[in-house]
Amino acid sequence: MPDTLRGNLAIGQSGGPTAVINASLVGMLHEASKHAAIENVYGLRHGVEGLLKEDLMDLGGTSDAELDLIKHTPAAALGSCRRKLRPDDYVRILEVFQAQNIRYFLYNGGNDSMDTSQRIADLAAREGYELRVIGVPKTIDNDLMYTDHCPGYGSAARYCALSVRDMGRDVEAMAGYDRVAIYESMGRHAGWLTAASCLGKESPIDPPHLVYVPEIPFSEDRFLDDISRCFVEFGFATVAVAEMLITADGDIVGLSEATVNSDSFGHIIVAGCANYLARQVRERLGLKARANRPGTLQRSSMITASAVDREEAYMVGQAAVREAVGGASGVMITLERIGNDPYQCTTGTAPLGTVANAENLMPRAYMNKDGNMPSAAFEAYARPLIGDPLPPVGRFAYRAVERRATVAD
Amino acid sequence: MPDTLRGNLAIGQSGGPTAVINASLVGMLHEASKHAAIENVYGLRHGVEGLLKEDLMDLGGTSDAELDLIKHTPAAALGSCRRKLRPDDYVRILEVFQAQNIRYFLYNGGNDSMDTSQRIADLAAREGYELRVIGVPKTIDNDLMYTDHCPGYGSAARYCALSVRDMGRDVEAMAGYDRVAIYESMGRHAGWLTAASCLGKESPIDPPHLVYVPEIPFSEDRFLDDISRCFVEFGFATVAVAEMLITADGDIVGLSEATVNSDSFGHIIVAGCANYLARQVRERLGLKARANRPGTLQRSSMITASAVDREEAYMVGQAAVREAVGGASGVMITLERIGNDPYQCTTGTAPLGTVANAENLMPRAYMNKDGNMPSAAFEAYARPLIGDPLPPVGRFAYRAVERRATVAD
Repeated sequence: MPDTLRGNLAIGQSGGPTAVINASLVGMLHEASKHAAIENVYGLRHGVEGLLKEDLMDLGGTSDAELDLIKHTPAAALGSCRRKLRPDDYVRILEVFQAQNIRYFLYNGGNDSMDTSQRIADLAAREGYELRVIGVPKTIDNDLMYTDHCPGYGSAARYCALSVRDMGRDVEAMAGYDRVAIYESMGRHAGWLTAASCLGKESPIDPPHLVYVPEIPFSEDRFLDDISRCFVEFGFATVAVAEMLITADGDIVGLSEATVNSDSFGHIIVAGCANYLARQVRERLGLKARANRPGTLQRSSMITASAVDREEAYMVGQAAVREAVGGASGVMITLERIGNDPYQCTTGTAPLGTVANAENLMPRAYMNKDGNMPSAAFEAYARPLIGDPLPPVGRFAYRAVERRATVAD
Repeated sequence: MPDTLRGNLAIGQSGGPTAVINASLVGMLHEASKHAAIENVYGLRHGVEGLLKEDLMDLGGTSDAELDLIKHTPAAALGSCRRKLRPDDYVRILEVFQAQNIRYFLYNGGNDSMDTSQRIADLAAREGYELRVIGVPKTIDNDLMYTDHCPGYGSAARYCALSVRDMGRDVEAMAGYDRVAIYESMGRHAGWLTAASCLGKESPIDPPHLVYVPEIPFSEDRFLDDISRCFVEFGFATVAVAEMLITADGDIVGLSEATVNSDSFGHIIVAGCANYLARQVRERLGLKARANRPGTLQRSSMITASAVDREEAYMVGQAAVREAVGGASGVMITLERIGNDPYQCTTGTAPLGTVANAENLMPRAYMNKDGNMPSAAFEAYARPLIGDPLPPVGRFAYRAVERRATVAD
């Protein structure tokens, strides 16, 4: 048995918030309180920003009631960041680790955050500073490698499934007035979240009728043909699109009217193809079309959080502390699916270096042959992650009353 | 006691759907089954469109289980419409009424629908056809006169309050990266729904920090000043705006990039000032800003429905049938608030003619002096309508860890 490493534990939250990243935090805190090796538990304010500024919160005295509230609070309770480490940051980081006797560093984020964690693990190894570094996965995009899925995804997926289902009922009710409703989902490169729009669909008339993901080259002509076909069949059409779509020629759809930003990792951030597509439907098909763009509501909405996702996020947080105390370092906690019937997951680990900066795109087999609707294989994968069955909705059986009036002109 | 009018009852749903318009429908169906005067209950498919086409559904045989499902289904289960009656429609309408022996006509909608109902009541009176016409109120905009509030509003208000609260936590967590988040609420002329964004606010740092409603002339310079002040105080800013705002000169804010449509009542429909305003924040203040535009999700979301709203919608539906059977005609059912402690409402009636085409705007006293935040009077009015208290959220008490490292440069 190795010598126990005694010292303080620092936790950081990084990247876009989710509905359940705080559940992971609470999992870490609960688990940390069980291990004598961990002396104090510190929260970094705004991730590595807080580390660089030595802006730490003492989380040790937090009551169970406070923790339960935090577990059900959306976004990132410690504050998050998108800070890429610069070469001169490392001296400072080591200085803070030493001054605060931080021996356990748990970083909760997406693939950029795993890269940051790897760099911090490398720093400690290079400088001979004993430190255990564990990555804790989090992303609504579900694009981390080597994990069955990512905490945060199930809740955002539930938001998407519920919103698209309800949006579809709305446009169905207004058929003849509103014709086409387009829902814009987050997920610039990976279609996992957009595809989740199908999880409330039970019959062909149910929304969505069409789903377009970033992995499949987008053709505007085919999109308009698809909509026309739907409109003929149902009298309306409901569509889910990712916030960024790319044509076969590599052009970003609707770039001229999109919001374009870049982040400190050098990623170009484009969002907003739905407005452009709605305009194409209006102008080229002459059908009234609306774009719904809930934006960050997708990742922050707490009322649509998946209970399965929340418990898995908590479990992943616990596992991170257990692994660190047990001697692991330089790994990210993963979720490994044991089975679907009943659905069950356990945790595992993957080397940070293999996860960092890699992107897990959706397999082609998770979409249908035409590339405009998720497949049964995707549904089987994603359905357990959104937790409880969606609240049921109904339709009247159409019992027509016999016409008795003179036929109208 | 008047002679009982025996015959069939026709129910129509009209205008933009809500989360609870089907609860009113179920209230009507339950109540109708209690009265021998009502022989059959017919649903108009897509409101007066269904009347003109004699496209009626027999709702009589619907089981209790089906009705319970419909009560919890968003949008309009019969189908809705925005059809303005034309002079040559009246002959046809009378023909269908006579052929189907429709003696009770209940129309569930907003002020345009009350106008339609009034016209149909006038037609019957003019032609000597005995018909009882009752308007059933519905609108998320809450802009009907002579009723304390409108069924549909409380649920959309709850959606707004929850979404803005969660969105605010998201931008707070990302402070330093995302700076300003703007939520665009429905409500082109009346600020009731936008103002509801404040109902999750408990302390100054909580979202929203700023609220702009259509009733108060909008100044872009003052808006940018307000945001700058917030940013200095909190490091971020969260804003709720109505989808249409007007300057003191009468200009529509951001018209150049808004979606502009018109409906069959001749109303110009403008939506989309949030994108424009976010761009102004980016360009003139240099702060990263996002616009969240959930669009029709606001009126269709079922998971955020208010239990109070749903029960009142049901109650209003019941009252409509009772009034009609009791001999009333040419009135709209209203909600009358008995008190706030405990909150309690009863139903009343108002003449259709006084409600039709009138707009109940928010009183100036429901906003603060600066016109950028709802007042305590508004909160007292609106809070009971969103039903159960919002699920609580927390924040860590900030117990700073003493700095021990050398001060960073």
